[in-house]
Amino acid sequence: MTPTLHNDRLLRALLRQPVDVTPVWLMRQAGRYLPEYRATRARAGSFMTLCQTPELACEVTLQPLARFPLDAAILFSDILTVPDAMGLGLSFSEGEGPQFARPLRSASDIDRLGVPDPEVELRYVMDAVRLIRRELAGQVPLIGFAGSPWTLATYMVEGGSSKDYARIKALSYDQPERLHRLLTVTTEAVTAYLNAQVAAGAQALMVFDTWGGILTPRAYRAFSLTYMARIVAELPRAAEGRPVPVILFTKGGGAWLEDLAATGCDAIGIDWTVDLGAARRQVGARVALQGNLDPTALYATAPVIRQQVAQLLDDFGPGPGHVFNLGHGIQPGIDPDRVRALVEAVHDLSAPLHTGGRA
Amino acid sequence: MTPTLHNDRLLRALLRQPVDVTPVWLMRQAGRYLPEYRATRARAGSFMTLCQTPELACEVTLQPLARFPLDAAILFSDILTVPDAMGLGLSFSEGEGPQFARPLRSASDIDRLGVPDPEVELRYVMDAVRLIRRELAGQVPLIGFAGSPWTLATYMVEGGSSKDYARIKALSYDQPERLHRLLTVTTEAVTAYLNAQVAAGAQALMVFDTWGGILTPRAYRAFSLTYMARIVAELPRAAEGRPVPVILFTKGGGAWLEDLAATGCDAIGIDWTVDLGAARRQVGARVALQGNLDPTALYATAPVIRQQVAQLLDDFGPGPGHVFNLGHGIQPGIDPDRVRALVEAVHDLSAPLHTGGRA
Repeated sequence: MTPTLHNDRLLRALLRQPVDVTPVWLMRQAGRYLPEYRATRARAGSFMTLCQTPELACEVTLQPLARFPLDAAILFSDILTVPDAMGLGLSFSEGEGPQFARPLRSASDIDRLGVPDPEVELRYVMDAVRLIRRELAGQVPLIGFAGSPWTLATYMVEGGSSKDYARIKALSYDQPERLHRLLTVTTEAVTAYLNAQVAAGAQALMVFDTWGGILTPRAYRAFSLTYMARIVAELPRAAEGRPVPVILFTKGGGAWLEDLAATGCDAIGIDWTVDLGAARRQVGARVALQGNLDPTALYATAPVIRQQVAQLLDDFGPGPGHVFNLGHGIQPGIDPDRVRALVEAVHDLSAPLHTGGRA
Repeated sequence: MTPTLHNDRLLRALLRQPVDVTPVWLMRQAGRYLPEYRATRARAGSFMTLCQTPELACEVTLQPLARFPLDAAILFSDILTVPDAMGLGLSFSEGEGPQFARPLRSASDIDRLGVPDPEVELRYVMDAVRLIRRELAGQVPLIGFAGSPWTLATYMVEGGSSKDYARIKALSYDQPERLHRLLTVTTEAVTAYLNAQVAAGAQALMVFDTWGGILTPRAYRAFSLTYMARIVAELPRAAEGRPVPVILFTKGGGAWLEDLAATGCDAIGIDWTVDLGAARRQVGARVALQGNLDPTALYATAPVIRQQVAQLLDDFGPGPGHVFNLGHGIQPGIDPDRVRALVEAVHDLSAPLHTGGRA
C-alpha cells in the first residue's frame, strides 16, 4: 500500500496548481558540500559503488532532507549509468570526472548498441528508487531523472568530459545520420529507464540536458529538443492515481523556452542567466518554471541570500507555477548553513504570494 | 602620410554601408592552429615575450593574412595586458592559462590600483599597433581590442581562469560597492588603452566580454553592460577622417542584444547559440552584427563548412550590416585548410546578397 504523500507542494507547483508556499529543492542537494555525504562517499570507496549500492544511494538521497525542510528528494545517481548499461564501461577518476572505457569511435560501435532492460542492467537504480520511496514514507515526493540523449551522446562519443566537443561536433556536421542513429537508440534507452523509475516509485521526472546549450539553434532542435520531445510523449501520464510531472532542463537554453514548452512537458528548468519574470510571461501559461538562483549566490552571506531569494520570488510574482531551485547544481565548496538560509527564505518569503493556496 | 585603405569592407559593413561581398575575419585568426604561429611562439620562448615584442606581435598578426583573403587584421595581444600594466604581474604557464602573481585579495588591493599610461606601461602594444599599420600598408584595416571591465575583473579577483568564479561572485553579492570601485578604475584603464590604440593606428575596436554570460540579467546590466557603455561613450568617433566603429561582444549574451545595441556601439558580436536572422530582426536596424559560425564547424569537411556558411548568410539575408566571423575563437586543433574553405565560401557565396554594393 502506498503511504499518503504528506507534502505534495512540488507536484502541485509543477502542475501549476495552488500551493501554500513555493516549493524548493536544489540540484545536487545530495552532494559534496555536505560532510555526511563525503563520509558516506569515503565509506563506499568509489563513486560508482555509491551509485550501485541501493542502501548507500538511499542514504545520501535522504541526507539533505534530514538537515533542511526541502520539498522533494531526488534520486542519487548519475546520468551516465545509462551509457554504462549500454556497455561503455563507466568509471570516475578522482578530480578527472567520468571516463568511458569503450567510447563510440565508429559506425559499428553505434550499430552495436542495444537498449538495456532497466530491471536487469540498471536494477541497482530501480532498487534504490524502491528503497528511497519506502524510507521517505510519504514525507516528500521522489524525483527520478535521466540525461538527455544529446547530453549522453556527447560523453559517449567524446569518452568523457570535453573542452571543445570536437568529436561529436564533427559527427554532427559530417555524419548527421550516424548521430541520429545514436540519439535514437539512446532515446529508447532513456525512455525505458524513466518509465521503469516511475514503475519503481518515482513521482516526478527531470531530464537534464546539460550540453544542449553548446548547440546552434538549428542543431539544438535537430539533435536535442526532438529527442526530448519523443521521451516526453512516451512517459506515463500518471502513476499511483496522480499525474507524474516531467521537467526538461537545457542549461543555456534560455532562448528556446517556446520550443521546450511545445514538447508537452509540464515544467521547464531554467538557469540563472534567464529573467524569471520574462520567462513566466513568455511560457508561464503553459508550463511551470523551475529555478533559477545563481548557484554562486550561495557564496554570499545569509542576509544577501535572503535578498536574492526575495528578488527572484518577486520576479516570478504571485500565483502558482514556480518551483524554487538553483540555476545549476550546488558547488562543492558551499557552506551547508547557506543552503539552510536559502531554503528557509523561500518558505518564509513566498507565503504572501500564495494566499488561497493549500499545503 | 596614411596610405589608402585598399579594402574597407569591414569598416563599411560595421557601419551598415553597402559592400561588394560580406567581409570576414576570425577571432584568434592569428593563433595556435597555424604552424607558422607555433614556430614564432617557440622562437619567442614565452607567450608574454610574444605579446611584448612588437616585431613578433606584428609577425603573427600578419601570418593569417598571408594565407587567406581575410578582410581585417586584429592586433595580436592578450586582454590581460591591461591588468598586468596595473601591477598584477601576469604570466602564462604551459597548459594552465593565465596567472596573476598579485591577484586582488582585499579592499586596499583595489584602492591601490591606478590607471596605466598606455604609452608608458603598455608602450609595447602601441608600438605593435604602429608597426602593424606600417606593414599592412593599407591592405586591410587593423582592429584594436580590449577585455571588458567585468571580464578583466574576473581574472584580477580570481587570480587566473576559474571554474566557479567563487571569489568575484561572492564580492558581487556581498560587497558590490567594492566591485564597482574595481570596475570603475578598470573602465578608466580600458578607455585610455583603447583611445591610445586608435591614436596609434587602430581603425576599429572590439571589446571582448568573455565572461558577461555567467551573470544573471540584473548583474550583467550592473557589472558589465554599464561599464562597456561608459567606454563606448569615451571613444573617439573618428580618426584619420573615418569613423572608428566599435564592436561589443558578450559571449553568452544573446538575451541582451537590445541592451547592447542601446550602448551606442556600432556592432554586436554574437556567439553561435544566437539565431542570426532573429538577431537582425531584433537590432539590425540599429547595429551591425558580427558572427556567428559555431567554431567547431571547422572540424567538418570543406563542403559541409560551405553549406554552413551558406546557411548563415541566408539567415542574415540580403543587404549590408553583417561581418562574418566565428561565434568564438578558432580552436587550436583546426586544420588551416578548413579556415581557407570558410573564408573563400564567405566571399563566393555572399556576392549575390550585395548587388549594388561596392568593394
